[in-house]
Amino acid sequence: MVARAPSLTSSRDRANQEAARRITDAEPVLVEIGRAIDLVPGMRPDMVLTSGAPLPWPEITGIQRRSVIHGALFEGLAATAEEAEAKLDAGQITVEATQTHGCVGVGVGIYTASMPVYVVENRAAGNRAFCTMIEGSPPRVFASGVWGPDIVERLHFVRDVLSTVVGEAIRRAGGIPLKPIMRRALSMGDELHSRNDAATQLFTSELAPYLVELARQREQDVQRTLEFLRSTPIMFMRLAVAAAKSAADSAHGVPGSSLVTAMVSSVKEFAIRVSGLGDEWFRGPQPEFLGDFLWGSTCDDMAWAGESLVMETIGLGGFAQAAAFSLPFRGSAEKLIERTRLMYDVTVAEDASFKIPYFDRGIPVGLDIFKVVETGIPPSIYGGVIRTDGGGMAGLGPVAPSTTIFAAAAAAHESRYGSG
Amino acid sequence: MVARAPSLTSSRDRANQEAARRITDAEPVLVEIGRAIDLVPGMRPDMVLTSGAPLPWPEITGIQRRSVIHGALFEGLAATAEEAEAKLDAGQITVEATQTHGCVGVGVGIYTASMPVYVVENRAAGNRAFCTMIEGSPPRVFASGVWGPDIVERLHFVRDVLSTVVGEAIRRAGGIPLKPIMRRALSMGDELHSRNDAATQLFTSELAPYLVELARQREQDVQRTLEFLRSTPIMFMRLAVAAAKSAADSAHGVPGSSLVTAMVSSVKEFAIRVSGLGDEWFRGPQPEFLGDFLWGSTCDDMAWAGESLVMETIGLGGFAQAAAFSLPFRGSAEKLIERTRLMYDVTVAEDASFKIPYFDRGIPVGLDIFKVVETGIPPSIYGGVIRTDGGGMAGLGPVAPSTTIFAAAAAAHESRYGSG
Repeated sequence: MVARAPSLTSSRDRANQEAARRITDAEPVLVEIGRAIDLVPGMRPDMVLTSGAPLPWPEITGIQRRSVIHGALFEGLAATAEEAEAKLDAGQITVEATQTHGCVGVGVGIYTASMPVYVVENRAAGNRAFCTMIEGSPPRVFASGVWGPDIVERLHFVRDVLSTVVGEAIRRAGGIPLKPIMRRALSMGDELHSRNDAATQLFTSELAPYLVELARQREQDVQRTLEFLRSTPIMFMRLAVAAAKSAADSAHGVPGSSLVTAMVSSVKEFAIRVSGLGDEWFRGPQPEFLGDFLWGSTCDDMAWAGESLVMETIGLGGFAQAAAFSLPFRGSAEKLIERTRLMYDVTVAEDASFKIPYFDRGIPVGLDIFKVVETGIPPSIYGGVIRTDGGGMAGLGPVAPSTTIFAAAAAAHESRYGSG
Repeated sequence: MVARAPSLTSSRDRANQEAARRITDAEPVLVEIGRAIDLVPGMRPDMVLTSGAPLPWPEITGIQRRSVIHGALFEGLAATAEEAEAKLDAGQITVEATQTHGCVGVGVGIYTASMPVYVVENRAAGNRAFCTMIEGSPPRVFASGVWGPDIVERLHFVRDVLSTVVGEAIRRAGGIPLKPIMRRALSMGDELHSRNDAATQLFTSELAPYLVELARQREQDVQRTLEFLRSTPIMFMRLAVAAAKSAADSAHGVPGSSLVTAMVSSVKEFAIRVSGLGDEWFRGPQPEFLGDFLWGSTCDDMAWAGESLVMETIGLGGFAQAAAFSLPFRGSAEKLIERTRLMYDVTVAEDASFKIPYFDRGIPVGLDIFKVVETGIPPSIYGGVIRTDGGGMAGLGPVAPSTTIFAAAAAAHESRYGSG
């Protein structure tokens, strides 16, 4: 890691370098796949997790509210949507935030007890992060709020075939280090949020010898798994976000640090968390979506939710979009380059182990709330938006959070640590 | 394909568009792997093929001469180097040019009867092209003139394991179309001459289901094959060059066309062939090497030979280097962009099915000898040089052929077709 603060005079600078160092030192390893109930800390059979800073059930709205109900139906916690809603109202089914359980919620981010999760261990700091497995390709995915028999069938495939085959391969491999895959994928046109084509290929290569072993007993399941891996180039994203969360979480809790360690959205609001400011969430309006509407959607159809911007939190995704000139639905390459360059102005370090090939320079790491406020430059996110009606993804492209929320966090930092 | 001649007034323009169209229309499919003696037209048990425009044995010099002898030893045509040389002098072992047998010679490009070859069929035109399989990673490879027990052992692995496993997988697959792999690899940082990381991954993915089937009988061989594929990112290059040759050859023989259909080097000389000028080779001095010397080599160690610049002949490799910002040992990204842009000035069309992500524009296709002469811009090649002492690769980077050879070909074109 290369610090970009020339002299670390203030204690805030030193704290930020420590937090950034924890991000760049992270060594995420995929160690296990299994049911959320067995692996996610604090998970309970009657619990549904969902994206965003913690909210009580009545404040969870729109497509996110319906998705929580669909999660309850998937899990068999209710027979009908009406019954599920009544049980949620009565507290017989409980809703909690993914973030409070070490999980990343992609899109609406629904977790229930029997859903398989990736377990990523950050071997540098010892902490763990979790993410569910994707069940298909956008736009019609469960994470985007889609529900129906085809989704259920694919979720069953994930639970019964994909997770067990990949899980067994991982155990035979003794765990799969994710950083080498992510690093190499960055040289192959992925920015690891909205494009994971190369990473999915590289992950499949890592699994291949173990899949061949496994085929002795389960050839048909292995073939179905390979077919899924081949046809789902976004697949690795769920691993990337768990790896990123394991890195970001390890940087949380450094006293005095003003670095952002989480950016999350529920359908209701956007929120950030800051390393030196404990468990407080700074909440504000949703980011502005500057991308393209796709698959027939318009701005009227749009909802926004999710936590996959944990990629940007560690300097990938939109912070490294100049590594991914094949990103779909972009403007020109110059735009990708410009938006990436700006991120060096709002971060405190560079991670030379993740090179952006076009720049031959490390990714910008360590988003500083004060730099956002001083420059007026919002973090450069590149992600997807979803339809509010359950139709799936609605678009993809640049996303700009309001800087007001960063100003609120900076004010809180100053009132806690002073203005030096 | 997008023609870049605004009005096709001259018969030469029309001929060049036809030749360029054949290149862009090519549909290369890997249909078979087997021994050269069984598959390469005109191959004989006592024959060694080598790179470059045809030369008689006494004119084959330096590391290329020694590599022909090593080929004869590998094939058991002689017991010692002295015996091989005597038999070559006496014509009991014959040497012919790869080019006259539809083969691409990578580096010194040695083919003997028992060596396995890829067979690539251009399903648009019906012609076939061939290339041997790589046996390891640079710098110590047979194509770079290296010889020794480790090379022989790896060539045996290729002959006995790799070629039979991959060959059987291909037969089960009913052939592997190469264009979709090449197209996608271009969006993943490969230019398909000096970088094939993504293409090798994608090719492995295509094979995976068949490898799993095959593992029922040959699990250990399949595992060794997977290990080779994982550890040899340049592997796909031999397929890319055979695919490119099948496209370039289909564009040869268009009366009146001034497009280059082959660029080749023996250790002695560089040579080109032109679509409308039959089998004549225009021979001249070796290109200038503008790259970096590596692995302890200097310019004094350098030799130059090979035909992998068939990639540039169809608009990939150095003509698409702006797709590959992770190319090793390059200058800045700006240099890669600049050298790529120049190629639009010496070609007659663009192949929109192969996009350079940074430009969001098709690759430049159809190198025109007249445009090279008029602009003074040599074709932009990005390739490797080899050591003259058999130590392997000596360097990698930009390579610029002299334009004099293009002037000679242009003069021949004018004397045959007139100057209109």
